[in-house]
Amino acid sequence: MSHDPTDQDAADATAPGGPTAVPAGSTAADVAAALRAAADAAPALADLLPRERADLLRRVADAVDADTDALVALAAEETRLPEGRLRGEVGRTTFQLRRFAAVLDEGAYLEAVVDTADPDWPVGPRPDVRRVLEPLGPVVVFGASNFPFAFSVLGGDTASALAAGCPVVVKAHPGHPRLSARTGALALRALRAAGAPEGTFALLFGEEAGRIAVTHPAARAVGFTGSIRGGRALHDLAAARPRPIPFYGELGSVNPVFVTRAAAEARAPEILAGFAGSFTLGAGQFCTKPGLLFLPASVSLEPLVEAVRAGAPAALLNDRVATGFTAGVAGLTGHPATTVLVEGTADATEDGSAVCSPTLAATTVADLLDHADVLLEECFGPASLVVAYEDESELLAVAEVLPGQLTATVHAEDTPEERPFAAALTARLRDRAGRLLWNGWPTGVSVTDAMHHGGPYPASTSALHTSVGATAIRRFLRPVAYQDMPQHLLPPALRDDNPLGITRRVDGAPEPA
Amino acid sequence: MSHDPTDQDAADATAPGGPTAVPAGSTAADVAAALRAAADAAPALADLLPRERADLLRRVADAVDADTDALVALAAEETRLPEGRLRGEVGRTTFQLRRFAAVLDEGAYLEAVVDTADPDWPVGPRPDVRRVLEPLGPVVVFGASNFPFAFSVLGGDTASALAAGCPVVVKAHPGHPRLSARTGALALRALRAAGAPEGTFALLFGEEAGRIAVTHPAARAVGFTGSIRGGRALHDLAAARPRPIPFYGELGSVNPVFVTRAAAEARAPEILAGFAGSFTLGAGQFCTKPGLLFLPASVSLEPLVEAVRAGAPAALLNDRVATGFTAGVAGLTGHPATTVLVEGTADATEDGSAVCSPTLAATTVADLLDHADVLLEECFGPASLVVAYEDESELLAVAEVLPGQLTATVHAEDTPEERPFAAALTARLRDRAGRLLWNGWPTGVSVTDAMHHGGPYPASTSALHTSVGATAIRRFLRPVAYQDMPQHLLPPALRDDNPLGITRRVDGAPEPA
Repeated sequence: MSHDPTDQDAADATAPGGPTAVPAGSTAADVAAALRAAADAAPALADLLPRERADLLRRVADAVDADTDALVALAAEETRLPEGRLRGEVGRTTFQLRRFAAVLDEGAYLEAVVDTADPDWPVGPRPDVRRVLEPLGPVVVFGASNFPFAFSVLGGDTASALAAGCPVVVKAHPGHPRLSARTGALALRALRAAGAPEGTFALLFGEEAGRIAVTHPAARAVGFTGSIRGGRALHDLAAARPRPIPFYGELGSVNPVFVTRAAAEARAPEILAGFAGSFTLGAGQFCTKPGLLFLPASVSLEPLVEAVRAGAPAALLNDRVATGFTAGVAGLTGHPATTVLVEGTADATEDGSAVCSPTLAATTVADLLDHADVLLEECFGPASLVVAYEDESELLAVAEVLPGQLTATVHAEDTPEERPFAAALTARLRDRAGRLLWNGWPTGVSVTDAMHHGGPYPASTSALHTSVGATAIRRFLRPVAYQDMPQHLLPPALRDDNPLGITRRVDGAPEPA
Repeated sequence: MSHDPTDQDAADATAPGGPTAVPAGSTAADVAAALRAAADAAPALADLLPRERADLLRRVADAVDADTDALVALAAEETRLPEGRLRGEVGRTTFQLRRFAAVLDEGAYLEAVVDTADPDWPVGPRPDVRRVLEPLGPVVVFGASNFPFAFSVLGGDTASALAAGCPVVVKAHPGHPRLSARTGALALRALRAAGAPEGTFALLFGEEAGRIAVTHPAARAVGFTGSIRGGRALHDLAAARPRPIPFYGELGSVNPVFVTRAAAEARAPEILAGFAGSFTLGAGQFCTKPGLLFLPASVSLEPLVEAVRAGAPAALLNDRVATGFTAGVAGLTGHPATTVLVEGTADATEDGSAVCSPTLAATTVADLLDHADVLLEECFGPASLVVAYEDESELLAVAEVLPGQLTATVHAEDTPEERPFAAALTARLRDRAGRLLWNGWPTGVSVTDAMHHGGPYPASTSALHTSVGATAIRRFLRPVAYQDMPQHLLPPALRDDNPLGITRRVDGAPEPA
């Protein structure tokens, strides 16, 4: 059975209650067909004007809006996430699609540069050279489990790749297969209705299908959000291809939070409450969950323990997450260098799924550094580790050995006395993390131009790129230069009369409007 | 012996005639010391203001200018390249250094984006988020043999990495070790005199040292120009590290040139003369050498054969290049699918080096496609292959199967009759090449903002990036976002008062000047 969503799949997926059965794994032939179709679609999709691709994205967003109730119901069933959260995530997903449409309308993302011929150029006569960014070609996207909309079938990777002009082949996450099928069928119908080239979008199921897609000759890039182990294996496949392709993987992060002595003295209760809320938000199933809280040893943890104990148990996404979480918690609480502050519970529900209450453990900086291999590992779910320090200089030592992080947070007082230490700490952290926060919490990633969601390995396999925000589109674009080309052979972005009306750089300066 | 150029090395290197002996290979301890020093230097180099790093680059360029005569003499001795060419290349090298200084002065390369807090942001209250590009950290640069200045110790990779704020550890090419030592010592002196942090620059010798550097934990990126075999091996090492790092390799390209029937009818003599000049320029030792010329079968090749025969023999860079060239030519001329048009000569000179006259062979499109594995391989040196076609549609078939190229060139007439075919051909070629040329020759890569020197694999290991032009700096920068940070902890580029005076994007629009 092909899982390039066909009309029949589409009909199934839109039946009341969604598809009747979980889709079977795609075969190697399915994968090859999807990628061949994507390669065939690529030139036509690339040749659409940016505003035409913007229209495609808006039509897809409209289709999601129109189907929100059914999508949310299916997502709630498959992921156990609460409806309010899921509705918010749908809004974020359509917002992302429309933001990339706006990026296309503006056109600055093309980075058009025109250097006209210059016989007096210092290093010899310069020909007419013009440069623009063009789509890479078919992109394979791996949906994540914890954001069944915003980082899944129509999430940021798909939105930015389509915006760039790249056909997308999505490998659905097994945690929400029927939602994926419904979303995929909806996307396919919307794209067809809007006149997108056949092959612009396809959906695959199954791990083996994902691996085959990454190694298929027609694939030109991969977007991935998931675990370090799974992501690293796919990264290695992408790098070992006869023709290597970029692998944009957002993998793991423990998102440390550093609380200075002055901050703890000024507002420990507020900080502890904020921390308890942040690491248990969404049952801790965020890649930005704070997994480490550095506190002065003198701070009483009683209020924190109480707040964590008071939290309601929450369902985990699926059995695979529950299994991983149970193992992670056992590693944390059973470690000789930690003490257990709150022992979480894990109860099976009627449907066989796990409902967990949060776990909190404690250690010291010295022990953390001695057992960094275990204690600096991400534990996906509602668990975190409080690390006591005696002297603030210990925080600098920790910052020096941290693996790459999506985020790092500093809670400090903005006073003249604190400034030198805060500066020293943030200077070290900026080399280790993609986003630095001040007196805040890392959960919640605002979708905005300035956002960076990425970081040094293992936070991401490509520290140069982000998977959230306007510049995520750049992952799927490559420069092409045209030398002495006649006007009619140039892409519209590079023609003398600037028919797209975009901002360009001409002969070393911004083009006059 | 350490080849982090020490004061003693510097003294040797500036003695009349340059260093007295070829430097020995760097040891593993040398490599580790250079990379540790680079890591130590990284924060201070990153913290310099862009205009301060611009000053470093200009001081290095001034030092090269002041030493030009001695450098050129040493380069001529080691590379056998003519003095005029070498002087031009020195000019290009200092031009590049000063261009990157200008990029730093302008500051747009920082891509500063400021999104102020917005409680009414559609997907929930937006915190204050600000994003800027920051240096990756120590970069390992591999010098190339064929550009002993512009793609070597102080070439574009080094210039763009230093501009980005990354310390550089250069692995010298064995083809010009004494020139490398002199250039390295000169760079080190200039950087020290200008107040650069110790460890900003180091020089290593030996292949094993290069491999150790690529796998050293402190290395954060690699720049490479060279062969597919050597580059791929290093790419694989970089990808397989516990913490993978980007490998920017410019590898191989055959740079096909397509001549339409109409162009051949209108100006065959001019095209054949241009081709003979381009593929033999610099003894064919350019990565942009046209290695394939597609011509209508009806075109007489006599004028081409005469022009090629009339060319003077030229020295190859070194014995390693000569050995590779001899093998490549043998593979080309001995292949059953080719006929030899001009059989080149290879003569040993007094100093044991090779002086070669050009080789030209011929085949057909059908044979080329049947033996693409051999006939589409780059042969570095003065050799090329003329490919006869009967019907122009054959050119489209070739364009579909070409591996990634640095350049692809079309010679056609800009007439209404030609336009559909020219459009069809360039549409296919733009997916295969980094630069498309019209009625020109690919040798000669102008250093200008719009230049793209790169392309799909194997032209480059990273199709998203260029090794020539202003945007080469981006290879060594990564985004960092700051959320709700106090002004004094923000990098200058992101502060409210914009102390650098750079162009920024603020709340979704260019900041008013």
